[in-house]
Amino acid sequence: MTVSANPLLSDRDVDFQLYEVLDAPALCALPAFSEHSRETFELVLGNVRRFSREVLFPTYRMMDAEPPVFRDGRVHAHPLMRKLYPQLVELGLLTASRPPEVGGQQLPLTLYSMASAYLMAANLSAYAYVGLTIGAAHLLEAFGTPWLREQFMTRMYRGEWTGTMALTEPQAGSSLGDVKARAFPAEDGSYRISGSKIFISGGDQDFTENVVHLTLARIEGAPPGTRGISLFAVPSRRPEGDRLVDNDVRVAGVIHKIGWRGMPSLALNYGEEGDCRGWLVGEANRGLACMFQMMNEARIMVGLNGVATASVAYHEALAYARSRPQGRSAGAKDALQPQTPIIEHADVRRMLLRQKAIVEGGLSLLAATSVQADLAAHSPDEETRKRAGLLLDLLTPVAKTFPAEKGFEANVLALQVHGGYGYSSEYLPEAWLRDQKLNSIHEGTTGIQGLDLLGRKVVAAGGAALQAFSEEVLATVARARQAGVHGPWCAAMEASLEAVLELTMSLGAMGMAGEVEQMLRHSADYMELFSILAVAWRWLAQAAAAREGLAKGGESQEFYEGKLRAAQYWFATEVPRVKPLVKLCSSGEDSYTGMRPEWF
Amino acid sequence: MTVSANPLLSDRDVDFQLYEVLDAPALCALPAFSEHSRETFELVLGNVRRFSREVLFPTYRMMDAEPPVFRDGRVHAHPLMRKLYPQLVELGLLTASRPPEVGGQQLPLTLYSMASAYLMAANLSAYAYVGLTIGAAHLLEAFGTPWLREQFMTRMYRGEWTGTMALTEPQAGSSLGDVKARAFPAEDGSYRISGSKIFISGGDQDFTENVVHLTLARIEGAPPGTRGISLFAVPSRRPEGDRLVDNDVRVAGVIHKIGWRGMPSLALNYGEEGDCRGWLVGEANRGLACMFQMMNEARIMVGLNGVATASVAYHEALAYARSRPQGRSAGAKDALQPQTPIIEHADVRRMLLRQKAIVEGGLSLLAATSVQADLAAHSPDEETRKRAGLLLDLLTPVAKTFPAEKGFEANVLALQVHGGYGYSSEYLPEAWLRDQKLNSIHEGTTGIQGLDLLGRKVVAAGGAALQAFSEEVLATVARARQAGVHGPWCAAMEASLEAVLELTMSLGAMGMAGEVEQMLRHSADYMELFSILAVAWRWLAQAAAAREGLAKGGESQEFYEGKLRAAQYWFATEVPRVKPLVKLCSSGEDSYTGMRPEWF
Repeated sequence: MTVSANPLLSDRDVDFQLYEVLDAPALCALPAFSEHSRETFELVLGNVRRFSREVLFPTYRMMDAEPPVFRDGRVHAHPLMRKLYPQLVELGLLTASRPPEVGGQQLPLTLYSMASAYLMAANLSAYAYVGLTIGAAHLLEAFGTPWLREQFMTRMYRGEWTGTMALTEPQAGSSLGDVKARAFPAEDGSYRISGSKIFISGGDQDFTENVVHLTLARIEGAPPGTRGISLFAVPSRRPEGDRLVDNDVRVAGVIHKIGWRGMPSLALNYGEEGDCRGWLVGEANRGLACMFQMMNEARIMVGLNGVATASVAYHEALAYARSRPQGRSAGAKDALQPQTPIIEHADVRRMLLRQKAIVEGGLSLLAATSVQADLAAHSPDEETRKRAGLLLDLLTPVAKTFPAEKGFEANVLALQVHGGYGYSSEYLPEAWLRDQKLNSIHEGTTGIQGLDLLGRKVVAAGGAALQAFSEEVLATVARARQAGVHGPWCAAMEASLEAVLELTMSLGAMGMAGEVEQMLRHSADYMELFSILAVAWRWLAQAAAAREGLAKGGESQEFYEGKLRAAQYWFATEVPRVKPLVKLCSSGEDSYTGMRPEWF
Repeated sequence: MTVSANPLLSDRDVDFQLYEVLDAPALCALPAFSEHSRETFELVLGNVRRFSREVLFPTYRMMDAEPPVFRDGRVHAHPLMRKLYPQLVELGLLTASRPPEVGGQQLPLTLYSMASAYLMAANLSAYAYVGLTIGAAHLLEAFGTPWLREQFMTRMYRGEWTGTMALTEPQAGSSLGDVKARAFPAEDGSYRISGSKIFISGGDQDFTENVVHLTLARIEGAPPGTRGISLFAVPSRRPEGDRLVDNDVRVAGVIHKIGWRGMPSLALNYGEEGDCRGWLVGEANRGLACMFQMMNEARIMVGLNGVATASVAYHEALAYARSRPQGRSAGAKDALQPQTPIIEHADVRRMLLRQKAIVEGGLSLLAATSVQADLAAHSPDEETRKRAGLLLDLLTPVAKTFPAEKGFEANVLALQVHGGYGYSSEYLPEAWLRDQKLNSIHEGTTGIQGLDLLGRKVVAAGGAALQAFSEEVLATVARARQAGVHGPWCAAMEASLEAVLELTMSLGAMGMAGEVEQMLRHSADYMELFSILAVAWRWLAQAAAAREGLAKGGESQEFYEGKLRAAQYWFATEVPRVKPLVKLCSSGEDSYTGMRPEWF
């Protein structure tokens, strides 16, 4: 009795975010996007929606059930990938946001984000091959030599080869400064690479002829720690003349992941036979700096994945709640009457409304963050670029973490709505729950995002980043007031913002006084706090747009009423947590920093 | 690199709960337990600890990896069960808390609860066969005819047969009033049973010769709804003379559960060939009343399972955090220095301390609830029995829900502490995460527990239940003050209690005025609120006992310091949520009750 027609995301909501909450087509006024218009947006979204629902989503369960197989030294992806990957390439995804010089369409990231959310919701593993290839090729585009761009990047963008990010080593997970893989300069200008990597997503497959690993390693004699790490392009098979020959990158094992099961996560050994060649990307010893330039975009993609994975589960739960009869409304106890759909029960609606608030609040945050990314990269005005860059840096850890953490909570609720059926693998919610869990771990754990937000981002540029955020929030409050949004929400938004600003200044002062440990003590609580605030900002913006829409009349009245209820939910249940969290973060409370390991 | 020596639960903590926070051996002053003493407690716990660690825990992973198989119409349990079940029986578990008349030892439930937590933490599926058999046999003990007791109950208590609870039907999950299975009186005094059941845990196996299903069905002509449901004992094979013959109970399918994978969950068909016989248990049409008399104990067992499943994962995470080197402490950036164990990172300690607060707070709540169950069943004083019964009824939904919901959160944190490794099935945290999820669903979902707590339990007996709870909390505050516990915690406890009492009275008044929908609007938030309060009570009691212990000196100083830090954590991070939650529950906030299905 699985519900099959899942919209993945609400089209009405995506349009609402792009055209009513934001004015995304206005980005087309920037020279970089001047070829585009709202018509392009609709065309791209139309194609992606159709493909995601009709082609990609039906493959999800099969790929989850049959993970890639490691046999005879090679990884064999699900046979479906031989068909799917060319279709994903044909859709133009690999170069959608890249410039025409490399064959791209240069669409705004804002549009690409929304489009990719559908693909992720439909089948995140199939899409991940694309996403990783884009990331790897983009590094070559930004830092590679002309030879590397021609030999490697072009083939990756054309869909002939795929790419990976090969950072992690068994002894160095979050601590990249401890990477040990080595690189010895060779006479031909390449390097001989040796070492081991782990958790390499898409590290091998059999549906394209080659995989290029963007690999962190230390050049012989480099300084220890983060300052001695370089970036290399290391293909599984290297070009020699017209042929590809084995490049001594071996699959050492497959990790049995609990989710993202359509894509392999591998342990790789480089140079077991001393014949692994890599090519330096960017300057020697500047490998981490190169990686970090791509980090915002990578983290936005994780955030989108969080939203997408929560969204597809939310829509499944919603359809189930509408169709599953069970019990009767409070008061109506007549057992001869038919049972009512469970959506009639207040507690089921609570679970659905919480999911809606998380999913659509998260999507709105990602859309707003993507706009800043577009402005930061493409505004012709330097001041605008700088300010947008600060906002992008500030919002990114929140846009990565909120969907990962609260999206997981939404996935739990989607399972719970299904009752006992949710606990069985005949139904899909448990699969999305497994998928979602990775998002709090990869691309910087939630703990690391908290340190990044509080220790760097909110105190950046002498407070200019936070100042810019504050202006954005206050502009939204003004818009909401103008639109006639419930006054107490506007007041709560202002008061919450002020409380967070004040807290941040006092924590920043601690940091400047050298009390870093004390400043960062509650970085996890601060992340929670800032997430509530940032999502309240997005719900206020949505409430404003809903009020504006209602004033215009038309067909979307029910949609707007739903938006106002979800905004109400956020302001009634989450925003009141700001005050106690501010108090906690400023209290000097030291239970866990003071807890000694031997006391556990 | 899995960490293998897992203590399951901390022995020191279990002893602390039994002998320092509570005075559990004082229960032996009751006539029913007069044969026992602290020595019995230690003997029982010693056996269970040894068996759980040495025999049961090593089987967990194998049974999770190879669920029971449905072949040729029969379910074949993991072959290990053929050895394990007799060992579990030999340990005396089936009748540990039963009276001597049925061959039992009549141990206090308080002791049995703590002992069973070890077994559940070691291998919940293996133990579940025992737990279900006890529940089914106990129903026969309480309501069965002498013939049923002799024929069925005795064999179940002896470990020769197992038992199940067969309540749920596909169209009637939480809504038992909609059960459709039918029973026709036959001339021999038995009934002919027909119908279908689903999610029947342990519904078939091949390690004992028979399974008895305590089955809800309607006798031909019974009134509709909950008042027409009767309870029957329906064996898979029925006794005829000296033989067992097939009783026409068929396995219709196996549900692929995501956890508890060592135990099958089945769809059963009764009477496909018209030859299924059942025997009435208790009075006709009073089946639900019989079931509900066992409900407190069943829900306490679910709560224990939640604690146990969170506990084993917490101890795994703790050991991992102590042994896994990664990164360096804040400030120490010298890459030539060795990496530190991750327990040195404040955010890892936060995750561990939160787990500790949930696990040990939950265990303390279950121990306190079990004491009330013992007093309610066995105190010679009627007033005491009545008061304890009210407390038991009040605490049970909280003791079931808190470990299910917050225990799941603890399991998520245990996975997160393991980083990328936690996302792989080579490590155990993901398995316990899957196991834990069932606890918010079975034996009454979290939503149903919230309605039970607010709609029935806290307003029971004209407020007498809440009054008794309030007395218990205030007695603990007095003890804490006496022991020198941090004054502000005592004050916060009193203030929180008062706020919850006041809220409850105003909600109760709504209910009496007939505004039931409005009264119950925030039942989920009320459950959250009451859980924070109840666990704060238990942490205050633990802080008092820790202070008393510290004053005595001795070897446990580090243990007590850890207890005080965990209490501090609860009072600093959870108790401040009481105020906004009280406000939310009394605000009339109507976002989800007012959200119409078509607005989603």
